[in-house]
Amino acid sequence: MDIHDLTRGLHIQNDSKIIMLVADGLGGLPMEVGGSTELEAAATPHMDQLATRGVQAASIPVLPGISPGSGPGHLGLFGYDPVRYQIGRGALEATGIGFELQANDVAIRCNFCTLDDQGNIVDRRAGRISSEESLPLVERLRSIEIPDIEIFVEPVKEYRFVVVFRGADLGDQIDDTDPQATGVPPLEPTANDPDSEKTVQVAREFLRQARELLADQPKANFHTMRGVAAKPNLPSYQEVYGLRAAAIAVYPMYKGLARLVGMQVVGEPQTLSEQIQLLRDHWDDYDFFFVHFKYTDSTGEDGDFEAKRQRIEELDAAIPEIDALGPQVLLITGDHSTPCYLKSHSWHPVPTLLVSDRCRPDGHTEFNESTCIHGGLGHVEAKYLMPLALANADKLGKYGA
Amino acid sequence: MDIHDLTRGLHIQNDSKIIMLVADGLGGLPMEVGGSTELEAAATPHMDQLATRGVQAASIPVLPGISPGSGPGHLGLFGYDPVRYQIGRGALEATGIGFELQANDVAIRCNFCTLDDQGNIVDRRAGRISSEESLPLVERLRSIEIPDIEIFVEPVKEYRFVVVFRGADLGDQIDDTDPQATGVPPLEPTANDPDSEKTVQVAREFLRQARELLADQPKANFHTMRGVAAKPNLPSYQEVYGLRAAAIAVYPMYKGLARLVGMQVVGEPQTLSEQIQLLRDHWDDYDFFFVHFKYTDSTGEDGDFEAKRQRIEELDAAIPEIDALGPQVLLITGDHSTPCYLKSHSWHPVPTLLVSDRCRPDGHTEFNESTCIHGGLGHVEAKYLMPLALANADKLGKYGA
Repeated sequence: MDIHDLTRGLHIQNDSKIIMLVADGLGGLPMEVGGSTELEAAATPHMDQLATRGVQAASIPVLPGISPGSGPGHLGLFGYDPVRYQIGRGALEATGIGFELQANDVAIRCNFCTLDDQGNIVDRRAGRISSEESLPLVERLRSIEIPDIEIFVEPVKEYRFVVVFRGADLGDQIDDTDPQATGVPPLEPTANDPDSEKTVQVAREFLRQARELLADQPKANFHTMRGVAAKPNLPSYQEVYGLRAAAIAVYPMYKGLARLVGMQVVGEPQTLSEQIQLLRDHWDDYDFFFVHFKYTDSTGEDGDFEAKRQRIEELDAAIPEIDALGPQVLLITGDHSTPCYLKSHSWHPVPTLLVSDRCRPDGHTEFNESTCIHGGLGHVEAKYLMPLALANADKLGKYGA
Repeated sequence: MDIHDLTRGLHIQNDSKIIMLVADGLGGLPMEVGGSTELEAAATPHMDQLATRGVQAASIPVLPGISPGSGPGHLGLFGYDPVRYQIGRGALEATGIGFELQANDVAIRCNFCTLDDQGNIVDRRAGRISSEESLPLVERLRSIEIPDIEIFVEPVKEYRFVVVFRGADLGDQIDDTDPQATGVPPLEPTANDPDSEKTVQVAREFLRQARELLADQPKANFHTMRGVAAKPNLPSYQEVYGLRAAAIAVYPMYKGLARLVGMQVVGEPQTLSEQIQLLRDHWDDYDFFFVHFKYTDSTGEDGDFEAKRQRIEELDAAIPEIDALGPQVLLITGDHSTPCYLKSHSWHPVPTLLVSDRCRPDGHTEFNESTCIHGGLGHVEAKYLMPLALANADKLGKYGA
């Protein structure tokens, strides 16, 4: 059973607006026993004020103990069971650089590598060549032509790039060609099911031409292919929730994830205040707004407690403007925790606050890790936040008579 | 979906150690409204001290309202969904007496019974004969021979014993022969699927010979067969968690349950201090230690509040020695509650405390039933404690990119 099996039949059109404000990696940890978390250390008068009329949850991104990447973290927030729905590595890499995958695409993560005279791999990352060095090589690979296949070659960073094949009947059950070792040749692409045979033929031809095109290179004279993946088959926000949904994000990854569930990506904001302006400009055009704030995650990854605290305060300062738009539901959460103490994504529950005149306030006057574990919504898997938001926006009808 | 589908692909090898200290039947109830539970009445300064740097959970053994036996109670703690994975009665009985089941075994619980001249059951428990009376009869049944089948006959207690057939192609879908009534003959073994036909033939031949061997007995002149069960097919700790796991238990049942999930049973301890010595001796040999303390359950079953309180204090006194070993994760929990008030296993959530420098302390300064329901890990099914322990020991990688 999936919650969408219920929401599909229950969703209702109305004029109410939902804002999901995602502070990436919001949750944290104290740096020592008895200390405060980043969110607790930050002065957040506006979120604390919202707490008095909202209800909190400790949101479990996937399942207890599981630390998600951005893909499963956001799928959970969007209400898609992140264990049932998985985004293949190639598809996520393409999404992350803003490539808009189509239904008949297969995306592949590629690494430039160095082969010796015998064709054995000497360096699996081609001496970690810079983006400046690899960009002309990516351009060169764009000259590859294969009948009936549209080909895209896109740089990612340094020795990494993405290849997308677009065409009919391209399966994605293909093993990586990276042998994960040096002193041996790259593997040949091989199919794990009959539907992927055609993709294997295309991949082999691509590699044949690439080897010729790169032959004169001292370092990046070939490349490997990994994480072959079709566009994930996710039902759309329109279908499962009846929502016209907008994504207002700075970074390509989050725009891409939003597109995968059928959200419209709005504008090219560079700052939070530009994001809020876009929210204002498009207020009448959509029912649901996903607003993504990256810096609570990146400062957590850096282990910079003070910087994360400041970023949280920056977000808090924007709350009055957001609240002033008068959303029926304002949901503040994160896709996972990124404690400075760990410098990485973690499994810890994410402080989550839902504000609506339909919610049952839980009496808290602050919003943080210590209050959310006693929140009125309990400890809840992230995938249930969307139905809660819909309900609080009067967008879900009664189930059964 | 099973959490193992995630942990299988995410587990990481490192040097950190996890101790799971199981106080069997730990949870309790007040003897009257407003009173203390056994754990609340006990002086537990060391566990309370751990609480200040740990995080608590109310652990739900199976599902709300479900009181588990030792089998499902421990499977849940070990991270195996106790509804999905079931240990057949025969297999549990064999496990409980320390019989090490193999993959091609079928185990059967047997009761001596009394038949009259017409072959009808007069007494389904053979007058509850003593262990002293039944032991020679068990020995006598060991003379039974059946071609291609290895046979084990093991005493349990009084009129109860276990028969294990070892051989190829022995299914376990066989009905009980105990008619659950007197004045009628025992039922013939019958198969519920084709794979169990051979087992039925073996069982009938065993019963034929048993009837001859027991014919001269005044009370125990035959026996019934119940709960026919193969060894349960549980994936191992090594496979699903990547753990080298040790079990340090006094009683055969818990050693047996641990063996079923691939733990190594270490030593023959008779006391808690011998268990701790074994923990110390084998500290470098394993990643995970299951330490089982029985007496919180047995005193609960006896309804002896004062004895259970003392046993909890005995356990608390051992905490400093355990903590001194420096586990990355110390998890204190129980497989279920055994309130003295009920004198039986119960469904009540079990006080659970996880201590790790990766946990988010929840501010409690005591550890008991009243604090755990407001714990930072929430109310959580026991099957999620293992992924939480692994995460807090840095033994689980990130899910998805």
